[in-house]
Amino acid sequence: MSLLIVGSIALDSIENHQGSVNDVLGGSAIYASISASRLCDDVAIVGVVGKDFPKEHIEFLEKHGVNTYAIFFNEGLTFRWRGRYNNLNQAITLETSLNVFENFDPVIPEDLQDSSFILLGNIDPEIQLNIIKQMKKPALIAADTMNYWIIKKIDALLEMLKHIDILFINNEEIKLLAQKHYLYDAYQKALNYGPDILVVKKGEHGVMVVKKDSYFFTPGYPLEKVIDTTGAGDCFSGGFMGYVASQGKINDHILKQAAIIGTISSAFNIESFSVDSLTKITHDHIMKRFEDMKKYTQFD
Amino acid sequence: MSLLIVGSIALDSIENHQGSVNDVLGGSAIYASISASRLCDDVAIVGVVGKDFPKEHIEFLEKHGVNTYAIFFNEGLTFRWRGRYNNLNQAITLETSLNVFENFDPVIPEDLQDSSFILLGNIDPEIQLNIIKQMKKPALIAADTMNYWIIKKIDALLEMLKHIDILFINNEEIKLLAQKHYLYDAYQKALNYGPDILVVKKGEHGVMVVKKDSYFFTPGYPLEKVIDTTGAGDCFSGGFMGYVASQGKINDHILKQAAIIGTISSAFNIESFSVDSLTKITHDHIMKRFEDMKKYTQFD
Repeated sequence: MSLLIVGSIALDSIENHQGSVNDVLGGSAIYASISASRLCDDVAIVGVVGKDFPKEHIEFLEKHGVNTYAIFFNEGLTFRWRGRYNNLNQAITLETSLNVFENFDPVIPEDLQDSSFILLGNIDPEIQLNIIKQMKKPALIAADTMNYWIIKKIDALLEMLKHIDILFINNEEIKLLAQKHYLYDAYQKALNYGPDILVVKKGEHGVMVVKKDSYFFTPGYPLEKVIDTTGAGDCFSGGFMGYVASQGKINDHILKQAAIIGTISSAFNIESFSVDSLTKITHDHIMKRFEDMKKYTQFD
Repeated sequence: MSLLIVGSIALDSIENHQGSVNDVLGGSAIYASISASRLCDDVAIVGVVGKDFPKEHIEFLEKHGVNTYAIFFNEGLTFRWRGRYNNLNQAITLETSLNVFENFDPVIPEDLQDSSFILLGNIDPEIQLNIIKQMKKPALIAADTMNYWIIKKIDALLEMLKHIDILFINNEEIKLLAQKHYLYDAYQKALNYGPDILVVKKGEHGVMVVKKDSYFFTPGYPLEKVIDTTGAGDCFSGGFMGYVASQGKINDHILKQAAIIGTISSAFNIESFSVDSLTKITHDHIMKRFEDMKKYTQFD
């Protein structure tokens, strides 16, 4: 079924232990949509770029199965981010130029208002709410957020949480959101805000899925080499939601598989800069690692 | 089969968010042996205490199935450690008094030289080697170490590694030991030093078992409340080795189960100060959580 992904589209410049790249395709909506399109054949992206955005990137996205119909070309420059990694996992932001992304508050085209599955990237919760209101019959809505919005826009965030089914978050953010010292208490309180499912991202340590009365854990997929971790979290969310949309529904069985497949998608992503390695994989590559993950975690 | 555990015996004083305790039973050999004795009925401890060590503690250990025959009472005071936790996982050492532990270099009593399974706590690798040399027919030797010995006694440590089957370590330590930037490379190099199995302890994120050609991951067992994490790593090792000794051998099946059971033992431990909660549990409590762990990790 159809998956709509809303978030940032950026041109990233990255320096790390592997070298450096300039103005490569990035942003949460890009990473998530390429990741989702490995699993789901009806993925559309909503975002904004400037007139300087290379047309090849649009062709590239279309070629990889992402509907770009709702990428808006506005006057001005595309969102740019420049960062440096001094270790594998934590980037220092050297420069952020929001440019056209600063006033991003999209009107969803009418045919995309019928999308069944919605993934809202980490943007202003007021904008997330505006998008939710435009959707006509969503089967499932998932959203990402971060410390910045928890601190700056807690009221809008709490309102937004009432309308979603799945929240992507990390342990520091959930404690801040719930104002609780113990994670268990924070999870329970956050589940009372609205979402039925918390997907707690733990970086290299994998992911934990929390519901009112259950847990599910997946480790990170072990890799020999890490090239660039930019976008890893978004590739997780994209792979997760791409798989859920491909199944057309969610239940405990699909939820666990989605967590595994999101983790695998994220691992493919960090084996290159930008989305290069993700675009080279097929469904079979993912399923090969899915079988590996069974070996790495199953016991009796 | 018989399990011999060598390490520190201490009187700990701890301050944390839950309160404080003074001169409670602690030390790596204590935590590991109590943990192991939940699973294995032939556990002996080798350690040293001062004349001030309360006789009740000896009775307590014996009552809980730990053979205390090789706890040596030396002139002087028992090893004492005083620490404060400002968060749940990281203690600041306020005071360490090695006392009688400073010159710990035990002569293993003859009947214990026949022990089949050996767990060497985190002590000077020269002492670990001296102990290994005294063992007559060990089926399996496991050892713990830490940054301090990697920096101060690398030659003795590398020699010790030639004689063991399992190394308990964490990711920072393994990178330091192997002098490798990537964990994958560090694991491969460390496996070439001698041990067939690395058990990588990741605190709240659980444990990873690494062999030349395989991985196994277990998450931490999720808890509602954390009381005191002191000794958690030793309770993991003790539970792990107690289970292996109870099976009388190791293979991939037993290895995975041991990692799960070690993780569960560690979780019971952090639900109280000292070894209080561990001594209240039975084999059935462990197996209940073993079934939980299946639900938390199994998918298809």
